Amino acid sequence: MAKEKKLVEAITSMEEDFAQWYTDVCVKADLIGYTSVKGCMAIKPAGYALWENIQADLDARFKATGVQNVYMPMFIPESLLQKEKDHIEGFAPEVAWVTHGGLDKLTERLCVRPTSETLFCDFYAKDIQSHRDLPRVYNQWCSVVRWEKTTRPFLRSREFLWQEGHTAHATAEEAEERTIQMLNVYTDFLQDDLAIPVIQGRKTDKEKFAGAEATYTVEALMHDGKALQSGTSHNFGQGFAKAFNVQFTDKDNTLKYVHQTSWGMTTRVIGALIMVHGDNSGLVMPPRIAPTQVMVIPIRQDAAGVMDKAIEVKDALAAAGVRVNIDATEKSPGWKFSEQEMRGIPVRVELGPKDIEAGTAVVVRRDDRSKEVVAIEDLPVRVPQILEEMQAAMYERAKAFRDSHLYEATDYETFVDTINNKPGFVNAMWCGDAACEAKIKEDTTATSRCMPFEQKHLSDVCVCCGKPAKIMVTWGKAY
Amino acid sequence: MAKEKKLVEAITSMEEDFAQWYTDVCVKADLIGYTSVKGCMAIKPAGYALWENIQADLDARFKATGVQNVYMPMFIPESLLQKEKDHIEGFAPEVAWVTHGGLDKLTERLCVRPTSETLFCDFYAKDIQSHRDLPRVYNQWCSVVRWEKTTRPFLRSREFLWQEGHTAHATAEEAEERTIQMLNVYTDFLQDDLAIPVIQGRKTDKEKFAGAEATYTVEALMHDGKALQSGTSHNFGQGFAKAFNVQFTDKDNTLKYVHQTSWGMTTRVIGALIMVHGDNSGLVMPPRIAPTQVMVIPIRQDAAGVMDKAIEVKDALAAAGVRVNIDATEKSPGWKFSEQEMRGIPVRVELGPKDIEAGTAVVVRRDDRSKEVVAIEDLPVRVPQILEEMQAAMYERAKAFRDSHLYEATDYETFVDTINNKPGFVNAMWCGDAACEAKIKEDTTATSRCMPFEQKHLSDVCVCCGKPAKIMVTWGKAY
Repeated sequence: MAKEKKLVEAITSMEEDFAQWYTDVCVKADLIGYTSVKGCMAIKPAGYALWENIQADLDARFKATGVQNVYMPMFIPESLLQKEKDHIEGFAPEVAWVTHGGLDKLTERLCVRPTSETLFCDFYAKDIQSHRDLPRVYNQWCSVVRWEKTTRPFLRSREFLWQEGHTAHATAEEAEERTIQMLNVYTDFLQDDLAIPVIQGRKTDKEKFAGAEATYTVEALMHDGKALQSGTSHNFGQGFAKAFNVQFTDKDNTLKYVHQTSWGMTTRVIGALIMVHGDNSGLVMPPRIAPTQVMVIPIRQDAAGVMDKAIEVKDALAAAGVRVNIDATEKSPGWKFSEQEMRGIPVRVELGPKDIEAGTAVVVRRDDRSKEVVAIEDLPVRVPQILEEMQAAMYERAKAFRDSHLYEATDYETFVDTINNKPGFVNAMWCGDAACEAKIKEDTTATSRCMPFEQKHLSDVCVCCGKPAKIMVTWGKAY
Repeated sequence: MAKEKKLVEAITSMEEDFAQWYTDVCVKADLIGYTSVKGCMAIKPAGYALWENIQADLDARFKATGVQNVYMPMFIPESLLQKEKDHIEGFAPEVAWVTHGGLDKLTERLCVRPTSETLFCDFYAKDIQSHRDLPRVYNQWCSVVRWEKTTRPFLRSREFLWQEGHTAHATAEEAEERTIQMLNVYTDFLQDDLAIPVIQGRKTDKEKFAGAEATYTVEALMHDGKALQSGTSHNFGQGFAKAFNVQFTDKDNTLKYVHQTSWGMTTRVIGALIMVHGDNSGLVMPPRIAPTQVMVIPIRQDAAGVMDKAIEVKDALAAAGVRVNIDATEKSPGWKFSEQEMRGIPVRVELGPKDIEAGTAVVVRRDDRSKEVVAIEDLPVRVPQILEEMQAAMYERAKAFRDSHLYEATDYETFVDTINNKPGFVNAMWCGDAACEAKIKEDTTATSRCMPFEQKHLSDVCVCCGKPAKIMVTWGKAY
């Protein structure tokens, strides 16, 4: 029993220290390892398998909308990065610079891509001639580098993995349509596959992407009441096209600039998954995204027939399309339970001599620990149902939590008090002035997360300055 | 007709200028585009879809042998790179150095990984404690950078995509077994999926990987008679383990160094595929790896019922598991044929009003242009057979070419004459002395490709110096 205790005690409780709990889960659930490279992490098999599933699900959703994958260089010559003024201002302070190739100093230094708008624009300028070449709907899966001072696994690291889509269109309408379409893809993916409810909205000018005309975002609420920006989609209008001279001959035989978009989702969503669903026993993975959905754990595995039956159950579940493993190590069952819980494997099937005699197995759900005795022959039918029930319950639980932490404020005192004392989002009216955003940030550290698509007229005046209100903003403290 | 002529004429014939033919195919088959980043290419949708299929096939083969995917940082601190003496000597002249992060100069410069042995060793040193942690069989898919002076698409570029496997084992036997196992995985993949026959063998000390005890290779013969190293697998023994202190407590409770391997395959194999199978009409893709296996091309598509029938055929083929598309653009059928041929799509199905009336379609194979009239209702059965027949024929043709360009020499004059005048491989006996390798390279530019596993005793003496021979070497001029 001492050993079992040890594994659970290995993580700090989230009530005691949420940040430490988060880091503990990342390490103890075997998602990451530390490296000698400052600010960069090693993603271990359990973490990478999760990312592979995220990639596969998201990539299939992309391709269903006509996205094609490509690969652009990882380096950006300094002169290229500087072509779009807002963009270079936004990114220059946080890029890594390559100055030498082998033993030679480069004539022009190159940055390691922090994002690839400039590379795609440079490519499109040569690649696109006619309206027949449009739209271009390209995406790449790669790693990018941003020289962060403070880093945390998945949430903020100097190198991270992501996808970045970059599209070019003949008309402004088409570009806006694609921007929103991809925001919806992210929303569906987060809600359906990761069981994470999100608020969709548009960023204020202060918070938008460097070089974008409009940035749309999906904002999720973590268990500590902080917001996590979980995916963004940008409409660039013709800004980049003009800076990079990306033109096409339209049907009317005139030369026009293309309209562009970009959209990205990163390994950050693994951080979101941990902080939305995890508990004090470790990770809880939504069944649809879990690399291993079911762990079969034999009890008294040396007893006659137990391992054979466990293997039979595993094979039957696998044949039913379940991603299933069997823990046949020599650890105690209690230790195995703790490990399965720490790693967030959605369901365990406990199977011992007595169960086998009764022709049943005990199925335990990770999220609420509910147990169900299921006839062994019914497992291939019942376990997939349980997985779907768990997926739905996880979403509902996360949504109920989010909804109960979504406040409203119409006066500044209430606003500041709520933001500071009630973890969560606060909806409040805003005049549209960046000065109010700055004041709120200074007073509370909270930022405008977005101007949500779902608006409500809470009052006529800005919660901060009292001038006429233009729009409702969702505010929150953020990762 | 003018237009059709133009597309075929767009590529230089391989007899006229093989290097130019190769580059033309890369560009005109839409695999790559040029970028403003010197020495780096943009991989376009057709090229990347091919790489995605290569990844999927190879990754499934890896996972069947127990490989787990991970992700390590892209940067290597200089001190880490320097830990293994041979390794740093081999790679230092060709790495890109990051010296600044944002506006600050780094206290230690970082190189962009040219390969990740040092990172994996650093990780394993912390990750591995006990024999229970072994073996570790990790792999990553990523991009790496080597600062090449002369670059060519896929064959040699400053950045390229690859996979690199890095394993740690308790015993020398296990490490050697894994080294050979992965060489066999590469061999099967190249032969079964890419239809490329290879010679398996071991590299001489001069040609082996920087830091390896033994390097094994698979060598393929290109259509111009040059060799292309298509995959390598290295046994490091305990060299890296000692440099990085990667130790484990064995069953006998003593501390031991692990035995390590690494193995890699890169986007170079796309170059191999082009140069083994391509012809003067463009690319020829082996059906098993082709992103699009069949293009349905309607003839007189405006005629009543043609497009409907073409879509029906496409859907029926897709339902039979064929990766199929339909070319419904407004180009002429002849132009579409040229495009399908240029892009190397294995089979086209021609379907016009007369065919539909007769209830048949014309099926044309890309490799030998053989035509077959097939009843429309039989297409879902016959087309998959044709694809398999084409796959087999492509391998047999490549093997016949390779075998007919595999020479033997027992005296130096014949050896030099053959190497210089007959494109292909030359087998000859070798004394084991690096001086003979150097002389041969100087006299002919040829290098020892490998000491093939399949040995033959051609003579008692070294073809170069006349001293007693130790082993047969396969020599060739190489990419």
